[in-house]
Amino acid sequence: MQTTDTATGSRSERGRQAFTEVMTFDPPPGPAAPDSLLDYVFAEVWTRPVLSRRDRRFVTLACVADSDAEQLLIDHVYAALNSGDLSIVEMRETVLHFAVYAGWPKASRFNIVVDQQWDRIHRERGLPVPAPEPLLPLVTPSDPEERLVRGTQSFKDVNCMPFAPDRNNPYQGAGILNFVFGEMWLRPGLSMKARRLITVACVGFQDAPLPILSHVYAALKSRDVSFEEMDELALQFGAYCGLPKGTYLSQVIREQKGRVVHEWRVEAEQEQS
Amino acid sequence: MQTTDTATGSRSERGRQAFTEVMTFDPPPGPAAPDSLLDYVFAEVWTRPVLSRRDRRFVTLACVADSDAEQLLIDHVYAALNSGDLSIVEMRETVLHFAVYAGWPKASRFNIVVDQQWDRIHRERGLPVPAPEPLLPLVTPSDPEERLVRGTQSFKDVNCMPFAPDRNNPYQGAGILNFVFGEMWLRPGLSMKARRLITVACVGFQDAPLPILSHVYAALKSRDVSFEEMDELALQFGAYCGLPKGTYLSQVIREQKGRVVHEWRVEAEQEQS
Amino acid sequence: MQTTDTATGSRSERGRQAFTEVMTFDPPPGPAAPDSLLDYVFAEVWTRPVLSRRDRRFVTLACVADSDAEQLLIDHVYAALNSGDLSIVEMRETVLHFAVYAGWPKASRFNIVVDQQWDRIHRERGLPVPAPEPLLPLVTPSDPEERLVRGTQSFKDVNCMPFAPDRNNPYQGAGILNFVFGEMWLRPGLSMKARRLITVACVGFQDAPLPILSHVYAALKSRDVSFEEMDELALQFGAYCGLPKGTYLSQVIREQKGRVVHEWRVEAEQEQS
Repeated sequence: MQTTDTATGSRSERGRQAFTEVMTFDPPPGPAAPDSLLDYVFAEVWTRPVLSRRDRRFVTLACVADSDAEQLLIDHVYAALNSGDLSIVEMRETVLHFAVYAGWPKASRFNIVVDQQWDRIHRERGLPVPAPEPLLPLVTPSDPEERLVRGTQSFKDVNCMPFAPDRNNPYQGAGILNFVFGEMWLRPGLSMKARRLITVACVGFQDAPLPILSHVYAALKSRDVSFEEMDELALQFGAYCGLPKGTYLSQVIREQKGRVVHEWRVEAEQEQS
Repeated sequence: MQTTDTATGSRSERGRQAFTEVMTFDPPPGPAAPDSLLDYVFAEVWTRPVLSRRDRRFVTLACVADSDAEQLLIDHVYAALNSGDLSIVEMRETVLHFAVYAGWPKASRFNIVVDQQWDRIHRERGLPVPAPEPLLPLVTPSDPEERLVRGTQSFKDVNCMPFAPDRNNPYQGAGILNFVFGEMWLRPGLSMKARRLITVACVGFQDAPLPILSHVYAALKSRDVSFEEMDELALQFGAYCGLPKGTYLSQVIREQKGRVVHEWRVEAEQEQS
Repeated sequence: MQTTDTATGSRSERGRQAFTEVMTFDPPPGPAAPDSLLDYVFAEVWTRPVLSRRDRRFVTLACVADSDAEQLLIDHVYAALNSGDLSIVEMRETVLHFAVYAGWPKASRFNIVVDQQWDRIHRERGLPVPAPEPLLPLVTPSDPEERLVRGTQSFKDVNCMPFAPDRNNPYQGAGILNFVFGEMWLRPGLSMKARRLITVACVGFQDAPLPILSHVYAALKSRDVSFEEMDELALQFGAYCGLPKGTYLSQVIREQKGRVVHEWRVEAEQEQS
């Protein structure tokens, strides 16, 4: 009993300390019931190894931007930029990537919050806000046919698949091949690993079974996210999106690990023979 | 008592009859508790005037595609196509529009369901599935600068706003101006009114306050959706997305009606003077 | 260090034991990272005092039905019925109440799962499935005018408000007054407290600011849910819907507690004078 109390006490302390480190400001005072959850998440999730604090931010930002809890979104955007874990370029690409995978309306609020917190950080430091990077020129081709060809290749590369969807379908052609894979995934400014973390979090809360499966698979198969990192992603995601979605994601991860291990074994055997 | 039985009985009958008309197949048998809601939705929501059954389908398809209840999505896609209320071109554009406003992962499932139900309807009728319309040529310009100029104008037109966001921000430039307004909203195949109905439903369940406000405003201000139609949209939306989001949307509608009436009055006065 | 290790070790044991008690079956084997979250939720959330296991089920069922993790929904419906914590009548009313507050499509799946698990439990016990309760007669009036009058009074009672919305608006009249408050909330078979728990969970994940505020307020003001129970509700909700929504709900609870305490003080002073 005593042991448990002490452990819980120390967890609360560890939780508050981890909160300050992650959030770059002190936790709010006052004992409300969800403090138990808050302590757990900061003391025992954010502080875990394998996935860095910076990597955990991509997962968390996606979950918080989806959840409509505006104050938490403000806090996490501020913390990610104020800590220096994310550059403003990375943050802005995160917003665009999130828009595609979680819907433009929620991304619209996310974008506004980024602008406000970027201003606030410069105000707090007495610095002028630097001018944004110019949008043009894009790195992707302009010709519609060339865009589709490039988008088709990018679709195969990102999804680790030998085929791509038929272009003569507005969702697939005008949307997926032309814009999502023909432009968005190819933009510089955000690493492939970061895009994977955001994407898996977004398909996780969007719940459509096939995209969860295919993006977990591709993140593992591409080796952009290791098996151990993916498990940590699931825990971070579960804390911010809730146990049911975390459990489902975790189950898909287990299955896709098996599939990837099997494929790697077959590929190794083929190389040897 | 007698009265109750008759009136309720008749609602249940009307509900089942309306179900068959809307869904193009008979309702499942059996008295479960939610039958009360099912009867209500079909007898007293779908059958209401002002917003046509076809118009109600756009709202309902968006809500059902968001809700992850796959069987209902299958049923409503089938019903919309089987009844002839929506053409396959309109349905495919609905999927793309939904993808932008509700997220690509959910739209991915929607897209698969459309393909399957389109096949099923042709199988049931003993007809071959016609070839899809070719994606190219697009009606929008290829040059990035021209696309941004066109997207900026389209943003102002669709949102009934005199200004557009700065392009030098990936979400705004590469996303909103280049693709969402520079291409997606400009595609043929779906009427402006249908796009409004889908958009308002999507911003309604996405919950970000500003997009709800701006899309309700623009739908009314543009006169693409009348005040009475918007009220019916809120009821149809509330039945399919739940009371809390319906209540919030309804409140925004009330406020934006006031704003639009005021602006129309000012504009009329300016024209007279 | 030693202490922490022991406490964590025992938490995992306590978590697995609580899982078995709550779920009526053993937890799945295997050490995945989200096990940490699973252990925490079962060892330190479900086992807490103030809110009974039965009460926690209403909150959890709503969250799980919303989350689209179908296996978890199956498990929790099974557990709630198999443990005897909820009767089948209560469960079916929960589905109807959920349908109104979370949307018909998700409730449709919930309803199917309830039927299947009810069948399964009877199959496992070698018992026939009893016939369902007949829907008719309803306890509410049939005459539309009487229904609106009754719905208006019920709206005021449930929401602890002195006024009700205008009936001449489809969403408010045909939706809110006629059906939701004129019929659904008045149905027997589910206690007011259970309806409050489900409603607060649903408005919590639906995120629309006004309904969260008004239902938290009414649950506290009516004394159907005590202050301490509401805090526990927020924790249970946070575990199943994620930290951001839990934090937001928690914040609204804090504000509404203040408002209710203030109103009770004013009312007590008015009675004394």
